[in-house]
Amino acid sequence: MLVELIIHIQCNIDRSQQSFKEIAMKAIVYQGHKSLAVKDVPDPTIQSPADAVVRIEKTAICGSDLHIYHGPDFGAGEFTLGHEFLGTIFDVGTDVSRFNKGDRVLVSCTIGCGGCALCDANLYSGCMTNTAFGPVTNVFGSPINPGGQAEAVRVPFADTNIFKIPDGLEDEQVLFLTDILPTGYMGADLAEVSPGDTVVVIGCGPVGVFAQLSALLRGAATVIAVDLDEGRLEKARLRGCRPLYPEKEDLNETARQLTAGRGADCAIEAVGHPATVQSVLEVVRPGGRVAVIGVVAGDDVRMNLMQTLTGKNITLRSGIVNPQFYIPKLLPMIQTGRLDPTQIITHRMSLSDGVRGYEIFDGHEEDVLKVVLTP
Amino acid sequence: MLVELIIHIQCNIDRSQQSFKEIAMKAIVYQGHKSLAVKDVPDPTIQSPADAVVRIEKTAICGSDLHIYHGPDFGAGEFTLGHEFLGTIFDVGTDVSRFNKGDRVLVSCTIGCGGCALCDANLYSGCMTNTAFGPVTNVFGSPINPGGQAEAVRVPFADTNIFKIPDGLEDEQVLFLTDILPTGYMGADLAEVSPGDTVVVIGCGPVGVFAQLSALLRGAATVIAVDLDEGRLEKARLRGCRPLYPEKEDLNETARQLTAGRGADCAIEAVGHPATVQSVLEVVRPGGRVAVIGVVAGDDVRMNLMQTLTGKNITLRSGIVNPQFYIPKLLPMIQTGRLDPTQIITHRMSLSDGVRGYEIFDGHEEDVLKVVLTP
Amino acid sequence: MLVELIIHIQCNIDRSQQSFKEIAMKAIVYQGHKSLAVKDVPDPTIQSPADAVVRIEKTAICGSDLHIYHGPDFGAGEFTLGHEFLGTIFDVGTDVSRFNKGDRVLVSCTIGCGGCALCDANLYSGCMTNTAFGPVTNVFGSPINPGGQAEAVRVPFADTNIFKIPDGLEDEQVLFLTDILPTGYMGADLAEVSPGDTVVVIGCGPVGVFAQLSALLRGAATVIAVDLDEGRLEKARLRGCRPLYPEKEDLNETARQLTAGRGADCAIEAVGHPATVQSVLEVVRPGGRVAVIGVVAGDDVRMNLMQTLTGKNITLRSGIVNPQFYIPKLLPMIQTGRLDPTQIITHRMSLSDGVRGYEIFDGHEEDVLKVVLTP
Amino acid sequence: MLVELIIHIQCNIDRSQQSFKEIAMKAIVYQGHKSLAVKDVPDPTIQSPADAVVRIEKTAICGSDLHIYHGPDFGAGEFTLGHEFLGTIFDVGTDVSRFNKGDRVLVSCTIGCGGCALCDANLYSGCMTNTAFGPVTNVFGSPINPGGQAEAVRVPFADTNIFKIPDGLEDEQVLFLTDILPTGYMGADLAEVSPGDTVVVIGCGPVGVFAQLSALLRGAATVIAVDLDEGRLEKARLRGCRPLYPEKEDLNETARQLTAGRGADCAIEAVGHPATVQSVLEVVRPGGRVAVIGVVAGDDVRMNLMQTLTGKNITLRSGIVNPQFYIPKLLPMIQTGRLDPTQIITHRMSLSDGVRGYEIFDGHEEDVLKVVLTP
Repeated sequence: MLVELIIHIQCNIDRSQQSFKEIAMKAIVYQGHKSLAVKDVPDPTIQSPADAVVRIEKTAICGSDLHIYHGPDFGAGEFTLGHEFLGTIFDVGTDVSRFNKGDRVLVSCTIGCGGCALCDANLYSGCMTNTAFGPVTNVFGSPINPGGQAEAVRVPFADTNIFKIPDGLEDEQVLFLTDILPTGYMGADLAEVSPGDTVVVIGCGPVGVFAQLSALLRGAATVIAVDLDEGRLEKARLRGCRPLYPEKEDLNETARQLTAGRGADCAIEAVGHPATVQSVLEVVRPGGRVAVIGVVAGDDVRMNLMQTLTGKNITLRSGIVNPQFYIPKLLPMIQTGRLDPTQIITHRMSLSDGVRGYEIFDGHEEDVLKVVLTP
Repeated sequence: MLVELIIHIQCNIDRSQQSFKEIAMKAIVYQGHKSLAVKDVPDPTIQSPADAVVRIEKTAICGSDLHIYHGPDFGAGEFTLGHEFLGTIFDVGTDVSRFNKGDRVLVSCTIGCGGCALCDANLYSGCMTNTAFGPVTNVFGSPINPGGQAEAVRVPFADTNIFKIPDGLEDEQVLFLTDILPTGYMGADLAEVSPGDTVVVIGCGPVGVFAQLSALLRGAATVIAVDLDEGRLEKARLRGCRPLYPEKEDLNETARQLTAGRGADCAIEAVGHPATVQSVLEVVRPGGRVAVIGVVAGDDVRMNLMQTLTGKNITLRSGIVNPQFYIPKLLPMIQTGRLDPTQIITHRMSLSDGVRGYEIFDGHEEDVLKVVLTP
Repeated sequence: MLVELIIHIQCNIDRSQQSFKEIAMKAIVYQGHKSLAVKDVPDPTIQSPADAVVRIEKTAICGSDLHIYHGPDFGAGEFTLGHEFLGTIFDVGTDVSRFNKGDRVLVSCTIGCGGCALCDANLYSGCMTNTAFGPVTNVFGSPINPGGQAEAVRVPFADTNIFKIPDGLEDEQVLFLTDILPTGYMGADLAEVSPGDTVVVIGCGPVGVFAQLSALLRGAATVIAVDLDEGRLEKARLRGCRPLYPEKEDLNETARQLTAGRGADCAIEAVGHPATVQSVLEVVRPGGRVAVIGVVAGDDVRMNLMQTLTGKNITLRSGIVNPQFYIPKLLPMIQTGRLDPTQIITHRMSLSDGVRGYEIFDGHEEDVLKVVLTP
Repeated sequence: MLVELIIHIQCNIDRSQQSFKEIAMKAIVYQGHKSLAVKDVPDPTIQSPADAVVRIEKTAICGSDLHIYHGPDFGAGEFTLGHEFLGTIFDVGTDVSRFNKGDRVLVSCTIGCGGCALCDANLYSGCMTNTAFGPVTNVFGSPINPGGQAEAVRVPFADTNIFKIPDGLEDEQVLFLTDILPTGYMGADLAEVSPGDTVVVIGCGPVGVFAQLSALLRGAATVIAVDLDEGRLEKARLRGCRPLYPEKEDLNETARQLTAGRGADCAIEAVGHPATVQSVLEVVRPGGRVAVIGVVAGDDVRMNLMQTLTGKNITLRSGIVNPQFYIPKLLPMIQTGRLDPTQIITHRMSLSDGVRGYEIFDGHEEDVLKVVLTP
């Protein structure tokens, strides 16, 4: 705590001038299947002229971190986890033109080079020389970069992947812009949620919550929020959704009742399970749009194309988020108070307690929804 | 033949005045699994005020007819096949306001009521009181209506599903507007083919041909046409495509070479097989759009969502065509000569030889691509 | 008042069975420049099989009625005013298939035939055989039809232009769906208001209010509401807008401040004056979208194209509303309580006092915003 | 000629290694109203780390150069003209990461910083720190940069505004990608030319030609090409347009005849005159889209909004081109042979004869359409 306090004071004085070497570089390190530790790791440094090093001030544990936690051993040895974080620019390479030391910034969870055909099309997550935090790659392959559940991080292609935090906004208001807020919004975007629509969102976890809020912000008339946790459903009701507990009500039947028999206009899967993918395909009307933003790891989805897509003229989309594209749309809504992302935070802990944070999140303990860590 | 000739003469004199009862009403009748016959059936009549009866002058055998031909017994007894046809209005119900007896018309293969929320959204194939020709239904159910491989047909909701044939166009120029031309175009539309795109079309059958032509008309820079029939590939080359014979070249590799390593921008599956569905998902770049317009009957498609859709931010669409929506876009291109649909016709036969027509089409005999029948 | 009471009772018993001839058919009649009267007019009757006659239960005075009131003599003799109204189906022609006597319905202010190329494209106001209520026409010409500030009205092409009022909604909740609510929404649609946008709406009259609410429903981060009436601005603030009184603040400067120097993303003119058209063109950023939904009658707008449109890559749109297209999007938002159109009503009067209603509205008396009349 | 030959040989040996100082730096210099000269100017140098210097190999005279030629004295003293050019990278600043000396490249006529909100939205011409070649500025102001009718040029923000020329393409095939080809295409894009449309293009000058070709590539069924020069109309006919000579045929009447009375779907003004702006607004149908890509310098356009835009629900757009956005769409069409931009070249001259080139182009001498200069 004392160290934290000192850091806090230093940060408020002049964080950019402080020598980085004076503080210990702690990080949450993946050591293998379900084995994590907070331990010392090498300080990040500028390795390419387009890099920046960011001292991290807030970081969060994401549902996709749990996929890594539960996943197979990546054969990549130990690596630092984390891809939702913000902080202050500590150092910049010679090619970085948009940022200076001391800038308070957000970092996108996906990293694009900013110069390939796919980055030009706003598909940074599909970057042809893509790099990512942690053991995530795309079709073009990419190296593993140490993540941001740490005291500092190297950010490749800083001009493309870093965003200034406007004055007047608190860390917790903008932290989720790095991943799950735009992921939730992407769900509403990929499902083409439009004014007057009846929208189904399966899942009231952090991403589901942001999908619901995004659907409402885009003018949905009704957002049916589905979950097996009645506490989460009650919160969904309070934020303006129509909660549905599937053990008590039939989703398809309810969607038809609310749409004069038609079926939902759009549906968003925010769980990541083949069964709920089937559900969103079923619940939409002919011409409906379905977005899968849950991570369906491992199992294949079996689809009878004629019954699901062809026979109903369905659009099915999924994707990895590009915060670079969505931040300019979402930031103004936070600034003007139309969107309050802090509502999902249930746990605030020190980075040094991060392993316990993973356990709480993984075990669904203490009505956890989102754990935020402070280095 | 004499009867045909007489009909032909009568048609050219004044087809609308002729009493329908004077001619024998022949039709191609499905009698059960792989059993067809040309036989007498009851004359169609006006059954609802929105109906029209159309005397048929040209009709064609569609790939989806073969699905019925090969399919299970529908338990619906015998019924008349056919959903691609045109002719002359013979009778109209009292509610029909757009057409008069004697009008030369096209009929859409899917039938919408024109009044429900889905028809209002141009999704006639998803019509909430949908009816269809033959044993085709949608999620809302529908009765079986006798099809149009016959001398005449009843068309429900005539004002919505019938289109006048402009003067100066031959029957064969417009016949395919009833189904497979808009189906092929729908492929290019659902795949969002845009100027400069590199597009893959798997399948050089009738629908594939129209998908290729449509992709070119929408400004594709390159259309890679894939088929296992080298004769069809040569024709694809002549119509401006880049042919690819998969036993000689690797599709993914070729697509990458033609796109500076990126992958195809869009891909259209016009075969209807789980394996080619996998191929189109593989060949597209991150952010690519995939349309399945082949009818994948029976088998499920197994998808690893993370690898196919999520990891590449793919849009996957499929659907049943709505000629009502596409005819106004396609007809002018036929009128000005930018599109020649007659190029796919390989066989012209009498309706009375229709069973043989099915056999030729089903058996891929005589380099068949499309069989047109004249009642 | 007694007559009104009797009608009210009759209406609640069984309005459709009642002989129409029993009540006097009163209407607000335009007699010439600024001369109106409430007087007896001929009862409406079915004149074409697609017609319906609607007994009117609520009607409103629109800003565009004032244009007629102030306008030149139309040389059309006397005619009944009014194009915002709802009521109960009294009679239907033989071709009307969607409605029955006794249905409680809304009527669109513009009337499309439902069958021409432009109606097919949802441009009912551009209908090639268009008719309209009152002396409004389009480029294809149209007859003058008696309007709906009356006890009853004939509605041409009933199936296309009439909409059922769902159970559970009050007249005042849905009345403005007939014109000004979709007009305001059209402003936000034509200006492509998108999530995160900074939007300027000039004018806080009835249409301006609905444009502001629509912009917020579509996800605008900030709606700058401009008016010269500080009372209206205070109400704009309460509904979530950022009010701007142009005599105290500079609009362009404020827009730039709120957008990091960029300028507004979209702007909607809801006044109808060349000077405010110039203002909306000025206030938007390069790439901005401008919608003019105020009626700029009479005066030409002078534009330096290079400075206004070309140099900034602007999209400028204007239009006559098509409630037929927007009602399905807006009605669900009223049903679920996301939109409360009744907030604009300031005056409720009897139809027989309608001339006084015009005077109040025209004179900006008594903080009037919207006058609703009950026949 | 000898000098040219020597340069040519040098270029083909190794242009990037050659010392720039060895050759004389000639340029076409604007000296004041209608006064041009080819004269020595200072060599361009790297002034900012994001700059590149490009040795120019082909450059062209643009219609907008004539606006400058005829325009007022800019009070900017002398400056080098030209914004359509290509060549070889001679030098790059330290921040330039996409290009190396010796790369054969195109340069966009508008210059964006690549880092502001407007560049992020592909509106480089609206760049908030925009610079441009020659005395062109935008709403945010910008310095004057020497143009490219010269032997070399400094290009600011090289990574954003320079594009590699793929192997296998000739200079003349790609030269117009720097401005007028994307300008013409922008016309078709802003007018939302879609498959099946009837499109009017007023003007058969260089930009008009590319607008016509672009409309055809996007699937227009009919392109009505209008000009007062019958020779140009004949060429329009040969490229697939429907020519219209306004002294012999009425444009509105013809458009209606070709669209069953409806009017043109889209219209593109490629002349730059208030009268032809009025014409394109008149000729489109309700719901039509109008793009003005001609430069309407000087005179205001007077519009009766109700008659032109409001009453017909028109979308009117204009803009300055962003080749950065369009080059990736257009280049593949040149590579695959679907688009041949060289067809507009009528004059090939030496840069040293550039003043004569201006005179020919300005005087419409020798059936001139486009003058290309070789330094």
